[in-house]
Amino acid sequence: MFRYELLHKDANCEARRGTFETTRGVVLLPTFMPVGTRGSVKGVEVGLLEATGSQIVLGNTYHLMLRPGEDVVRDLGGLHKFCGWRGPMLTDSGGFQLFSLAQLTKITEEGSVFRSHIDGRRIELTPERSVAIQEALGSDIAMVFDHVIKLPNERRNVEDAMERTLRWAARCKKAHKRTEDQAQFGIIQGGLEYDLRRRCAEELAAIGFDGYAIGGLSVGEPPREMYDCIEATNVSVPQDKPRYLMGVGRPEDLLEGIARGIDMFDCVMPSRNGRNATAFTDYGVMHMRNARYERDDRPLEENCPCPACKRSRAYIRHLFVVEEMLGPILLTIHNITYYQRLMAGARAAIEQDRFLEYRAEKFAGWRAGVPE
Amino acid sequence: MFRYELLHKDANCEARRGTFETTRGVVLLPTFMPVGTRGSVKGVEVGLLEATGSQIVLGNTYHLMLRPGEDVVRDLGGLHKFCGWRGPMLTDSGGFQLFSLAQLTKITEEGSVFRSHIDGRRIELTPERSVAIQEALGSDIAMVFDHVIKLPNERRNVEDAMERTLRWAARCKKAHKRTEDQAQFGIIQGGLEYDLRRRCAEELAAIGFDGYAIGGLSVGEPPREMYDCIEATNVSVPQDKPRYLMGVGRPEDLLEGIARGIDMFDCVMPSRNGRNATAFTDYGVMHMRNARYERDDRPLEENCPCPACKRSRAYIRHLFVVEEMLGPILLTIHNITYYQRLMAGARAAIEQDRFLEYRAEKFAGWRAGVPE
Repeated sequence: MFRYELLHKDANCEARRGTFETTRGVVLLPTFMPVGTRGSVKGVEVGLLEATGSQIVLGNTYHLMLRPGEDVVRDLGGLHKFCGWRGPMLTDSGGFQLFSLAQLTKITEEGSVFRSHIDGRRIELTPERSVAIQEALGSDIAMVFDHVIKLPNERRNVEDAMERTLRWAARCKKAHKRTEDQAQFGIIQGGLEYDLRRRCAEELAAIGFDGYAIGGLSVGEPPREMYDCIEATNVSVPQDKPRYLMGVGRPEDLLEGIARGIDMFDCVMPSRNGRNATAFTDYGVMHMRNARYERDDRPLEENCPCPACKRSRAYIRHLFVVEEMLGPILLTIHNITYYQRLMAGARAAIEQDRFLEYRAEKFAGWRAGVPE
Repeated sequence: MFRYELLHKDANCEARRGTFETTRGVVLLPTFMPVGTRGSVKGVEVGLLEATGSQIVLGNTYHLMLRPGEDVVRDLGGLHKFCGWRGPMLTDSGGFQLFSLAQLTKITEEGSVFRSHIDGRRIELTPERSVAIQEALGSDIAMVFDHVIKLPNERRNVEDAMERTLRWAARCKKAHKRTEDQAQFGIIQGGLEYDLRRRCAEELAAIGFDGYAIGGLSVGEPPREMYDCIEATNVSVPQDKPRYLMGVGRPEDLLEGIARGIDMFDCVMPSRNGRNATAFTDYGVMHMRNARYERDDRPLEENCPCPACKRSRAYIRHLFVVEEMLGPILLTIHNITYYQRLMAGARAAIEQDRFLEYRAEKFAGWRAGVPE
C-alpha cells in the first residue's frame, strides 16, 4: 500500500527528508514532479525524462478525460502503459482546470458543469466522476475534487468554497474503490485566511487521506503571502503523511516551501519557460536568445549531466534563433534536470541539518547572476 | 585519408556492398544520411539520432552560412563539436538551396549573387567561397558547388548548366585545401539528357574526386525517368568511388537506386513526413491521425527497436490529435530508424546476392498495406 516515512527533520527549520512508498516504487522526498498534462511532458521522450532524475510525473484528469478519454486510456492498459512512464504518477482531479481553462463552469453542490475548451461540448464533473476517471487512468496518487476560486476574494466566498471542498473530499473518499494500488490525497483550500486553511486541514485529517495538498495558491498573490500561508497551514497538517504544494513554482518557491515542511511540488514552469528560451541555473535564469551567448562555447552549467549541457550556450542560442524544435526540447530537459538537482541537493542538505545554509547559497548564486 | 572499398557486388544487379573510410569512422554502404539542415535533425536529440542506426549526417552550407555563420561554427570548434554528432558529416555546397530557396539569384560565370530568404541580405556564393565555408564547418565530405536548374528545360540550358558545373568543379578542386581530413565529391548534372550526364561524369572523373554525386534529380520528373537516368549515368561513373544520389527519396526510390549502383542517399522525407504524422513501415505509409488507430494497442511495427515502437499506435495518434511535440519527435525517430533498417537489410541482401528478392519483398509488403 502506501507508506510515508520521515527519515530526518532538519534541526533548524521545518524541512523534512522522507520517503513515500507506492506500488511502483519509493519516492524520495522532497521531490519535484514534472507535468505531463496530456500523457507527455512536452517534447521529452520518456527515456530522456527518466535521465533527468524525475521520480514521479503528473498527468491531468481534465485534459485526458477530454482527449483521448479515460476509457481509451483504461482499455489500453492505463496511463503508465499508454505513455511509457514506469515510475509513479499522480493525477490531479480537474478542479484547478475548471477554474483556469474551462468555459461557463457552473458549480453546484452536486459538482460542476462546463464546456470543453476544445469543442464546447457540455460535460459534467462531480467528485465521484473525478475519482472514477482517475481510477480508470490508473495513477498511483489521485487527488480529491476541489473547488478552486479566484484570489483575492471575499471571506464569505473563500469559506463557502472551502466547506464545499470538504464535503466533496468526503464524497471522494467514499467513492474511492481502488485503494490497494492508488493513494488518495486531500486538498486544503481556504485562500489566504489562515483559520480557514487550518480548519480545512484538520477536517480533512479527520476524514483521513494518504497525503495532503495545499491548493489554490500561486494564483497571483505575492510570494511572501504564499509562504506565510504555507507556514500557517502546515501547523495543522498531519506530520505522518506527505504534504504537496500544488502548482508551485519557481526554484526559490520550492526552497521556501521545503523550509516550511513541504514534501512535493509540481509546476509547468521548467518546461514552459524552457520552451521560451529561459534556462534555470545556479546563476539564476539565462535568456538563451541573448546575443551575449552567440559565441559562448561553455555549457549552460559545467556540472550539469543533461544532454543540453553537452552542447555550448552558442548552440542552444542558435537553435532558438533559427527556431529549431531541438531548442525547446533541450532547455526543457535542462530545466527539469535543474529542478531535480535542486531537490537532490535539498535532500542531502536536510540530512545534514544544513538546509537553511543550502537555501542561502542558492539564493546568493541566483542573485549574483551569470559570470562573464 | 579516404578510401572506398567494394566488398561485394550483387550477382544479379548493380547493387554494391562497400565501405567508405573517413577520419571519423567507416561508413557501411549503401547508407542513408538524415538531414540536419541547421545543425540539428529537427526534433531529434543527438543520442536518440545515434540510436536510429544513422552513420553519417548531412548539414546545409547555405543555411549555416546565414545562421549562425560559418565563422561562428569554426570558432566554436567546427560543426561536429557544435551539434554533438560524433560520426562523419557531409555538407552540401549550397547550389541546390540557391535553386530552391534563395531569392533573386543571379548566376554568372564567377558564381552567384542572391538575397537571403531570411532577411533579404545580398550575399555572394562562388565555388571558392563554398569550399571555404565547408572547410570552416569542418565536414568530412564536402560537395562541389554546382549549377542546378529547373526540369524540364531546354537542352541548351541543361548543357550550359552542366558545363558551368564542370568548370566550377575544377575551381572547387583547386580551391580545396583541407584534403587531409575532408573528402570532396563532384556533382554530375545534365538533366535527363543521358549523353550530357555521361559526359559530365567522365569529365569529373578526369578532374578526380573522392566520390561522385548525381544531382538535379527528384525535382518533379516521374520516378521511372529518374531511375532510367541513374542507370544511364552510372555507366560512366567511376567504380572505385562512392556514388551518391542527392535529395532522394522515398523508400522505393532508395531500393531502385541501390539496384542501379547507388551507395549514398539523403532526404528530408523521413523527418518532414514524420512531422506530418506519416510513418514509414514495412506495411507502407501509415497516417497516424487516422481514427482507425484510436484504440490500436500495437506498436507501429513489432520488430522496430525505436522508442516510438515502445508505445502504441493509439498513443502516437493521441499525440498528433492533441498536437503534442512528442508526436513529430517520435515519428521522425521511427522514420529515420525505418530508413536505416531498410539500408541494413539491403546491405545484408547484397552480400547474399539476393538484393532483387529483398526489393521485391519490400515492394510486396508496401503494396499489401497495414493489416487489420
